[in-house]
Amino acid sequence: MADKKIKVGVVGLGGRGSNLTQAILCLFDDIKIEYVCDLYEDRTEKVADAVNSKLGYRPKTTLDYHDIINDESIDAVMVYAAWEAHIPVAIAAMKAGKYVAMEVGGAYSVKDCWDLVATSEETGMPCMMLENCCYGKHELMVHNMVRQGLFGEIVYCEGGYRHDLRDEITRGEEKRHYRLRNYKTRNCDNYPTHALGPIAKILDINRGNRMLSLCSVATKAVGLHDYIEKKFPDNEKLMKTRFAQGDVVTTLIRCARGEVIRLTLDTCLPRYYTRDFSVQGTGGYYSEQAQALYLDGEPESWDVNKILFSAKNYEDKYLSPTWQQYKVTPPTGGHGGMDYLVHKAFLDCVREGSKDLPIDVYDTASWMVITALSEASVANGGAFVEIPDFTRGAWSTRPIRDVEDFKLN
Amino acid sequence: MADKKIKVGVVGLGGRGSNLTQAILCLFDDIKIEYVCDLYEDRTEKVADAVNSKLGYRPKTTLDYHDIINDESIDAVMVYAAWEAHIPVAIAAMKAGKYVAMEVGGAYSVKDCWDLVATSEETGMPCMMLENCCYGKHELMVHNMVRQGLFGEIVYCEGGYRHDLRDEITRGEEKRHYRLRNYKTRNCDNYPTHALGPIAKILDINRGNRMLSLCSVATKAVGLHDYIEKKFPDNEKLMKTRFAQGDVVTTLIRCARGEVIRLTLDTCLPRYYTRDFSVQGTGGYYSEQAQALYLDGEPESWDVNKILFSAKNYEDKYLSPTWQQYKVTPPTGGHGGMDYLVHKAFLDCVREGSKDLPIDVYDTASWMVITALSEASVANGGAFVEIPDFTRGAWSTRPIRDVEDFKLN
Repeated sequence: MADKKIKVGVVGLGGRGSNLTQAILCLFDDIKIEYVCDLYEDRTEKVADAVNSKLGYRPKTTLDYHDIINDESIDAVMVYAAWEAHIPVAIAAMKAGKYVAMEVGGAYSVKDCWDLVATSEETGMPCMMLENCCYGKHELMVHNMVRQGLFGEIVYCEGGYRHDLRDEITRGEEKRHYRLRNYKTRNCDNYPTHALGPIAKILDINRGNRMLSLCSVATKAVGLHDYIEKKFPDNEKLMKTRFAQGDVVTTLIRCARGEVIRLTLDTCLPRYYTRDFSVQGTGGYYSEQAQALYLDGEPESWDVNKILFSAKNYEDKYLSPTWQQYKVTPPTGGHGGMDYLVHKAFLDCVREGSKDLPIDVYDTASWMVITALSEASVANGGAFVEIPDFTRGAWSTRPIRDVEDFKLN
Repeated sequence: MADKKIKVGVVGLGGRGSNLTQAILCLFDDIKIEYVCDLYEDRTEKVADAVNSKLGYRPKTTLDYHDIINDESIDAVMVYAAWEAHIPVAIAAMKAGKYVAMEVGGAYSVKDCWDLVATSEETGMPCMMLENCCYGKHELMVHNMVRQGLFGEIVYCEGGYRHDLRDEITRGEEKRHYRLRNYKTRNCDNYPTHALGPIAKILDINRGNRMLSLCSVATKAVGLHDYIEKKFPDNEKLMKTRFAQGDVVTTLIRCARGEVIRLTLDTCLPRYYTRDFSVQGTGGYYSEQAQALYLDGEPESWDVNKILFSAKNYEDKYLSPTWQQYKVTPPTGGHGGMDYLVHKAFLDCVREGSKDLPIDVYDTASWMVITALSEASVANGGAFVEIPDFTRGAWSTRPIRDVEDFKLN
C-alpha cells in the first residue's frame, strides 16, 4: 500500500472528533480523509470545510456511517462518535473489511464486548482502541523501566480519570454531548481506559496475566446539582435534573498474578486534573500526581518536598525509544503528543497491511468491559463480579509484546 | 486537681512508648510518671533512668501492668504497648477507675471493641485513642475550612498509611517488635487510624453520621520476602518466613450520608511516606500527597505544577485556632507537634476531671474495629461487611463536637 494513500472515513465530529480530524489526521501526508460523518449536518459541513482549507480537498459528508462502510475503497474507519456508537460502528466496519480505530470509552454490556471480539476473529479485521495514554511520555518511561526490572515485581497500580467535567456535563444539551445522558441514567466507572490502558500493558494483561474480578463503589451524586445551583439557578430543566452517576466511583480489580489495580472516576467535583497513574513494585514506585519516582535503595525521605517532581530526573536515561526521539520537541497535535503517537501506530499498521495491532481487540474489549461490570457491581452494593477472559485461555501463553515492539516508522 | 500532680503509669516501652515517655510526658510540669512498665526489664530500667536524669525522680518499674492499675493513687494509664495489649490493658485500667489513653492500633475482634465500649459505659471512665493525626496542622486546617463551609458538601475522603516499614518489620525479632508476628499471620488493614481519625472527625462519624460497611482487598505478599532476599540472604529463618499480609490493602468504607472513605495500607514496598490524606467536597479539594488545596471558582489548571504545594497559601487565613498559636514554632516533641497536642488534650481532661474527651470511646472503638472487619473482608474475597454502630443509635442525635471544642488550656 506504500504507493497509494490510505483512505479513511471519520465517524463522529463532536468536540473530540472534530479536533482529531483537523489536528491529527491532517498531519499524515499519506492518508486521504474520504468521508466525514456525524448525526448533525452543521458538524460535517464545518469539518469538511476545515479539511478543505488545510489540505486542499473536501471530504464527502454524510449523516449515515453506512455510506462509509459500504464504500469498498475505504481502508480504515476512525470512530470518534459517542460512547454508545463505538461498538456498533466498529462491528459494522469490520464486517465490511475495514480496519477500525475507536476513540476511548466504556462498554454498555458484556455481550457487546464479546460481539466485538467475535467479529474481529471472524472477519480477521483488527479493532484498536486509540488509548493515547498508552503512548504518554511518563507512562512509557515507567513501562520501559519496568521491562528493565527496575521496579522489581509489580504489586499495585493506581489510575483514574480525575477531571472536573461539571461544565461539559451540565452543558450537554447545548453541546449535544453524550456525557449528560450517561450521567443521568448510569452509575459506574464510565471512563476507565486512560487509567487502565497503560497499567494493563505494564501488567501484561491478556499476555501472561489477566483481570479476574472487580468491585466498584460509588459515592452519593451531589456535585452536578450543586454546580447547577451555582451556575444555572434559572435553568428550570437542569435544576430538576436528577443524576444517577455517583460523584466518585472507586474500582478495585484483582489480577491473576496477585496484583490489584485501583481505578477512580472523579468528574463531578472541583479539582485539578490528574490521571492518578501510579505503579508500585518491589523495586520502585512512580506517582503521576506527585510526579515522583523512587527506586529501592535510595535513602528514604520523610520529606515529600524532596520527592515531588523527581520523575523528571529519570527522563534522560529511561525515556522509552519512542520518546527519546522527542526529547526536545514532543509530537504536535495535542495531549502532549500522545494523540499523534497512537494514531501513527494505527495508521502504520493499516499502511503495512498488518493485522497485528499494538492495542488489539482483546485489549480493547477487556478495557471497555470494565464500565459494564462496574455498573453491575455498583448496582449490587459493591459485590465482586467476574471479568470475562476474552482470549478464552490464550492469555496464559500469548507472548508479551509492548506497544513499542510494533514497528513505528 | 489543680493543686496536685497528675499521676500516670506508662505501659509499653518499645521504641514508641520509650520515646513518648521521654519526649512528651516529660514536657508536662504537672504530671508525675509514677510507673513505667514493660515485659522486658532492660526497657523499664532504661526509661526509668532516662526520666530520672530528665526530671530528677525515678519512676517505679514493673513487668506487670496490674501493679499500676492496682495502685489507687494513679489517675491515668498511658497504653503504648503492642497492638494486642491495648484493649485488655485499657479495660482493666477503666475497671480500676483510671483514665485511659491508648496509642493507635487496630482491633483483633469486633467483640473486643464492644467490650471496650461496654467497660467505658459501665465504669464511667473514658478511653481516648491518642490519634495524633487528628491534631495535624493541615488536617485541622482542612477540618476548619470544612466547618466554614469552604469545601461544600463532603463526598469522598482518602487516607492511608503508606510507609516503607520493611526494615522495622523484618528486624522484628531483634527489635522485639509486634509488627513481625502480625505480618506473618494476618492479612488486613492493620493500621487504619492515622488515615481514618481526621477523616472521621471531618465526616461527623458517631455525631450525625456513621460508617455502615466496608470491603478490603489485598495484593499478593511479596515485598517483605524480596527485601529479605536483598538484605538478609544468609538469615535462614527469615528467608523461610512466610507472610500472610498482602503488600497493599485497599479498604472502601460507605457512610450513612453517602460519602465513601478510601483507606490504603502500604508498608511492604519501597516508597516515600504519605498518609494520602485527601478531602473532596462540592466546594473544594485537598490532597496531602500533592500538598494541594483547590477551592471551587479558582481557574482550573491542567498543569499540576501550579497546584502542587498550594495548601501552604491557605495557612495564614485558615489554620485552626490551635495552630494559629504555633504559626512560628510548632510544639516540640515529634511528628510536627501532633504528639504533644494529642497528649495535652488528654491530660487537660484528666486534670479537670472531665469525662468528655475529644476522642472518645465510640471514636476509638469504631476506628479500631476497621482492622478486624478488614481482616474478615479480605478473607471473604473482598465481600462487604457491616460496621457495628457502637453508639447503638445515638450517632443520629449526638451533637457535633470538634477536637478543638474541648478546652485546650
